[in-house]
Amino acid sequence: MAQKRNIIVGQSGGPTSVINSSLAGVYKTAKERGFDKVYGMLHGVQGLLDEKYVDLSTQIHTNMDIEVLKRTPSAFLGSCRYKLPEIHENPEIYEKIFQILDNLDIEAFIYIGGNDSMDTIKKLSDYAIVKGHSQKFLGVPKTIDNDLALTDHTPGYGSAAKYIATSTKEIIRDALGLSYNKENITIMEIMGRNAGWLTAATALAKTEECEGPDLIYLPEITFDIDKFLTTVQNIMKKKQNVVIAVSEGIKLADGRYVCELSGGADYVDAFGHKQLQGTATYLANFLGSQIGCKTRAVEFSTLQRCASHMASRTDINEAFMVGGAAVKAADEGDTGKMVVIDRVSDDPYQSSAGIYDVHRIANNEKLVPREWVNKDGNNMTEDFINYVKPLIQGDFQPFMVNGLPEHLVLNM
Amino acid sequence: MAQKRNIIVGQSGGPTSVINSSLAGVYKTAKERGFDKVYGMLHGVQGLLDEKYVDLSTQIHTNMDIEVLKRTPSAFLGSCRYKLPEIHENPEIYEKIFQILDNLDIEAFIYIGGNDSMDTIKKLSDYAIVKGHSQKFLGVPKTIDNDLALTDHTPGYGSAAKYIATSTKEIIRDALGLSYNKENITIMEIMGRNAGWLTAATALAKTEECEGPDLIYLPEITFDIDKFLTTVQNIMKKKQNVVIAVSEGIKLADGRYVCELSGGADYVDAFGHKQLQGTATYLANFLGSQIGCKTRAVEFSTLQRCASHMASRTDINEAFMVGGAAVKAADEGDTGKMVVIDRVSDDPYQSSAGIYDVHRIANNEKLVPREWVNKDGNNMTEDFINYVKPLIQGDFQPFMVNGLPEHLVLNM
Repeated sequence: MAQKRNIIVGQSGGPTSVINSSLAGVYKTAKERGFDKVYGMLHGVQGLLDEKYVDLSTQIHTNMDIEVLKRTPSAFLGSCRYKLPEIHENPEIYEKIFQILDNLDIEAFIYIGGNDSMDTIKKLSDYAIVKGHSQKFLGVPKTIDNDLALTDHTPGYGSAAKYIATSTKEIIRDALGLSYNKENITIMEIMGRNAGWLTAATALAKTEECEGPDLIYLPEITFDIDKFLTTVQNIMKKKQNVVIAVSEGIKLADGRYVCELSGGADYVDAFGHKQLQGTATYLANFLGSQIGCKTRAVEFSTLQRCASHMASRTDINEAFMVGGAAVKAADEGDTGKMVVIDRVSDDPYQSSAGIYDVHRIANNEKLVPREWVNKDGNNMTEDFINYVKPLIQGDFQPFMVNGLPEHLVLNM
Repeated sequence: MAQKRNIIVGQSGGPTSVINSSLAGVYKTAKERGFDKVYGMLHGVQGLLDEKYVDLSTQIHTNMDIEVLKRTPSAFLGSCRYKLPEIHENPEIYEKIFQILDNLDIEAFIYIGGNDSMDTIKKLSDYAIVKGHSQKFLGVPKTIDNDLALTDHTPGYGSAAKYIATSTKEIIRDALGLSYNKENITIMEIMGRNAGWLTAATALAKTEECEGPDLIYLPEITFDIDKFLTTVQNIMKKKQNVVIAVSEGIKLADGRYVCELSGGADYVDAFGHKQLQGTATYLANFLGSQIGCKTRAVEFSTLQRCASHMASRTDINEAFMVGGAAVKAADEGDTGKMVVIDRVSDDPYQSSAGIYDVHRIANNEKLVPREWVNKDGNNMTEDFINYVKPLIQGDFQPFMVNGLPEHLVLNM
């Protein structure tokens, strides 16, 4: 009897609209390349350590299921925020993982995630090489934050950018349609702890028939609250309705987050990241008290990472592509690598899957380049627009059942 | 030379996703019925008093423009929150309005709005009758809140319900996909000061593949925070992820809004309504401190009233229908009336335009019937689902230009 050729795939970190399209790409390509079983870790490595996994052929029966999966937000398999210890700190955990992989005849281990997940791939592939295990470890990028190095952009970013830009256009219409002869300030709070890619995407709302946000503040640029007030006051000499986009992670010169001024940021997650919320509310109250006009805060919150109903076709297709490319790379003997997206051309936009050593990637955050922000540090340049515009192109309509998008869910 | 037959239309109150579909219905029907000019008040009666209006033929040139207008959120003409004084308090304002209408050869005055706007129609039609003016005054219902009496439902509600239900499904997927072995509570805050129709729509997320929100709290039911805590604790004995929907307007037995507990509700609008915000954040902090698990608050905020990209086809078509029906009624001599939507049948769903005397409508808020809420007062019954489900059916895809929905905007 021939050796079993099985593969296992997991999802980790914050969900996106297209993380399941990568899962679909892994599954379909693994089947096409002759893998026997495709296992899914439930809740990533953390669930795997409890031997929680599923044979995906019990979940995905038809090509239609694959199409529904592509349109399902959040991690189909469940996610985790689990950081592997350093190998020397706790070799037992590594032994346990490899025991489980051996028991399941796993040949390739694919992990779909962000910076922290690539750290997992790095450690597991290092351990395998040192200990002489044959499994291949490949990373598939995923994050709405677009903060991974070496890839032109990350799967998940394009769809989040499309949702954010669409909602920004709608909010600007809403603001302009409001009361007569009354000043009105809208502050939109967008995700982004250190990297402002998502907030920058609000600039896409500037189109032929929409003037876009008046001001855009990214965490990459130190936030000066006095200058902010003066800038808004100057704009209000010319117009009544002002729409402003801010990253949740904007910081003052002394290093404090703006949201900390109102007592936010008190929850710290497993990776030591502060949870940020309340930046827009704080600034809306501040401007309201200083200027004396009506202000409102709109937090895009969780919706921006799970709004599959506004996914970008480019993004869905690229997410599928990188999932498949990881399987192909593992099948061809690569390990300790992450698949990336290379931009082949801008117009027409074309991309292809590349591959990088994960040691070059892990834990490096890619920030928005300073030259893509205007001189005043409060709006985006044309170069940024040219970068991001291709990523939101094309629609990927949900399958509607009784008026609502249909999702594929685990059936245990 | 024959007498000019002109018509004027205005939009008032909070915008919706489909208020412009009613405007399109007014415009198209007025043209079809031989009106000469169709004027649009800019920012409703308040702008009209400053003689701000536009000839809509300078804005709408083609049938394509009408289709884009139907897909444009917020008030195309601009809205206002202006309450006409009682006639005896300030007859000069009424004289001024009728002088402007006479100058423009206006035969019919159509006002698209909610409760407060129907009050405007009532006063103007009363004044016209008393003073012997020939103009006809017709109201077209509009509000995401669905709180108008006598109409089966209001245009704008179906699209907001569809957006809310879609986002709820996506947020539930997001919640379930999160961390492993960790309790997690998500509280969604939905608009609705006194009427819980929008919050109730989260119940639509309960479908074959989604269990829907665990708890739903409407402003119609007195909120008991101790009972709330016990109920959540009981649910958490059985499941780790709890998703809860609350109306911004839920109130304690002593009459205070829940959001007032955290110092919210300090802004009061022109109609004396408190602005409510912070209910979900307050409850998330409360549960977090009591239960000791991770909680998050998601405010749907402005997005729920302007998300044209998730409009219901039923809603868009009905909004268009009631706009047209108002023109027809005025043309046939009706005045002081509001067009309503009558439900003709449930399955297949059919509706038609009816008409009611506006004196029977104005300032009566229609609340969610107690029997459509379960015995415990924390979820919806099947009867409610049967009522709301037809209203979210059918899609009305935006016209996408460069990856984003296209809108029609005023060109002055």
